[in-house]
Amino acid sequence: MATKMNGQTLIFQNPPHIIGHASVVGPEEGKGPFGNSFDLVCDDVKCGKDSWEKGEKQMATDALNQTLGKAQLDPSDISFMLGGDLLNEIITTDFVARDQDIPFLGLYSACAVMVEALGLGSILMDGGFADCVLALASSHYQTAERQYRTPLEYGAQYPPYKQYTVTGAGAYALGWLGGQTWITHCTFGKVLDLGVKDSNDMGSAMAPAAADTILQHFMDLGRGPQDYDLILTGDLGQTGKKMLLSLLEEKNVNVKDKLEDCGALIFGGKKKYGSGGSGVGASAVMLGSVFIPKIVAGEINRLLLIGTGALLSPLTVQQEESIPAIAHGIVVEKIPGG
Amino acid sequence: MATKMNGQTLIFQNPPHIIGHASVVGPEEGKGPFGNSFDLVCDDVKCGKDSWEKGEKQMATDALNQTLGKAQLDPSDISFMLGGDLLNEIITTDFVARDQDIPFLGLYSACAVMVEALGLGSILMDGGFADCVLALASSHYQTAERQYRTPLEYGAQYPPYKQYTVTGAGAYALGWLGGQTWITHCTFGKVLDLGVKDSNDMGSAMAPAAADTILQHFMDLGRGPQDYDLILTGDLGQTGKKMLLSLLEEKNVNVKDKLEDCGALIFGGKKKYGSGGSGVGASAVMLGSVFIPKIVAGEINRLLLIGTGALLSPLTVQQEESIPAIAHGIVVEKIPGG
Repeated sequence: MATKMNGQTLIFQNPPHIIGHASVVGPEEGKGPFGNSFDLVCDDVKCGKDSWEKGEKQMATDALNQTLGKAQLDPSDISFMLGGDLLNEIITTDFVARDQDIPFLGLYSACAVMVEALGLGSILMDGGFADCVLALASSHYQTAERQYRTPLEYGAQYPPYKQYTVTGAGAYALGWLGGQTWITHCTFGKVLDLGVKDSNDMGSAMAPAAADTILQHFMDLGRGPQDYDLILTGDLGQTGKKMLLSLLEEKNVNVKDKLEDCGALIFGGKKKYGSGGSGVGASAVMLGSVFIPKIVAGEINRLLLIGTGALLSPLTVQQEESIPAIAHGIVVEKIPGG
Repeated sequence: MATKMNGQTLIFQNPPHIIGHASVVGPEEGKGPFGNSFDLVCDDVKCGKDSWEKGEKQMATDALNQTLGKAQLDPSDISFMLGGDLLNEIITTDFVARDQDIPFLGLYSACAVMVEALGLGSILMDGGFADCVLALASSHYQTAERQYRTPLEYGAQYPPYKQYTVTGAGAYALGWLGGQTWITHCTFGKVLDLGVKDSNDMGSAMAPAAADTILQHFMDLGRGPQDYDLILTGDLGQTGKKMLLSLLEEKNVNVKDKLEDCGALIFGGKKKYGSGGSGVGASAVMLGSVFIPKIVAGEINRLLLIGTGALLSPLTVQQEESIPAIAHGIVVEKIPGG
């Protein structure tokens, strides 16, 4: 049997196809430069429900249903659903799963959870443990702010490096037939903590973990930036992206012309959104709605997606802990002849 | 290739060995009937730290280190560490992982997370994606009560069916060499919600999910209670255990002489602990310290462990949602000739 693992990197022998995906976003994301790319833009962050949390659940449910529709799948075709979100006890994804008749595996790695779900889903597929997998993740500005920082009603002032949580949900179906892209590799990261304590400065907290996973991925596969058309991080924002560039430069790895960040892109760099978007919604919606179409169109051949997660809670902040972070990566490529 | 999946059940072709395990518990668990079975009984629920949460982290770290020691493993031998706990953003496990140089996959399924970690860990092993996996889970009475219900200082009165969260951490190393037991099957469950809204009544909320996963497991494998020496649930408590027996009897499945519950057992049925223990700590410490030794001694040949998780959060309780629940199962057997 060919090598399936090298260091922290898994090399899929039977890479699963991404046979469907859909994204649902809120009004702010809809006003951004990629507004027309998303499947559904909600003009109400509660989606007509009576709480923000129920609105987030509705967005995630809509993303799931649109994905099933696009891939022409019935829920009974799905072997396992994997996913998570940013809320305590991942209640968004739990409650979406409650309404589905699909075995469910709950995950938590903060904003890295979309990539964790796609990576573990690929393992289930490649290993012969599933015929079809659904990966799901979401975040929501209003639900995240009141949980992690202060309720919006307080009108707190924030520093310019603060990010703005993306309101968005993304779902992906992995299967064997159909689709034009597949997931060929996966690198699961380690938890790093370089001592950042400011819960507004997620980008700086997460950049070292992103650098570590990228360098590990290159080392494991004997690759470098030249082997990728795009290295796409999840939600470092402009501040974290700059820091990542510096950290990689220190190791003589130059990705300046190859690096983009979903969070830094999604709001078009407007000052209102500080350093850019954060939240797993950023990678969850941008991969499928913006970058997979570029792969399909031949503008990009091989993409390394690095999901970045800050593993803090309000309680660890109160207890004066610094912010641990993690980064997981997957490689998405065009299926040859696909 | 032989069938690896049947319905929701995965059949491991190369079942991973449990090559080491360790349990750390608090003083209340130490006073119970299995007090002498655990590797370490702490007489201080803070483990000398300045908060309960830091105490829980210390217990989980101790369980991890004792497991590595028993299995004669160096952290660098571990391909991946998987696990979770009950605290918001799984901070116990995140912060344990921060101190380890091991790639980490965070999971959340409330008190089902020990079984989720062992199941996914077995998939990584059987599929050739890991040489060695570490699975870790913990819960803690004081940290859980103040997060899920009320701070203990309030002295709230509770109904008799209320359970008492187990203070305990369990860690398991999966590998190919050594050990006398292995994990042969895994059944991942669906999220069920029959409308229970009382966050003190976890047993009743979780029993339907446990019944569903047990019945699915039997159906997938064409097995029944006669094929198991013990069906062991995680933390239904006495109330939930009775309900599970009734639910299975309705389906003409009689497990009366085969069913035990880690939570109902751990405190010896004393009134002080209500309906018994809850929390993922119950299954995390009882499997390794009480039941694996029984398998090794030949008292039990084949055990079905059903981890049971209640997927509520204080916020969903406040928003008047009912309590979704999930149950995941693994089969643990004596290795033939082992």
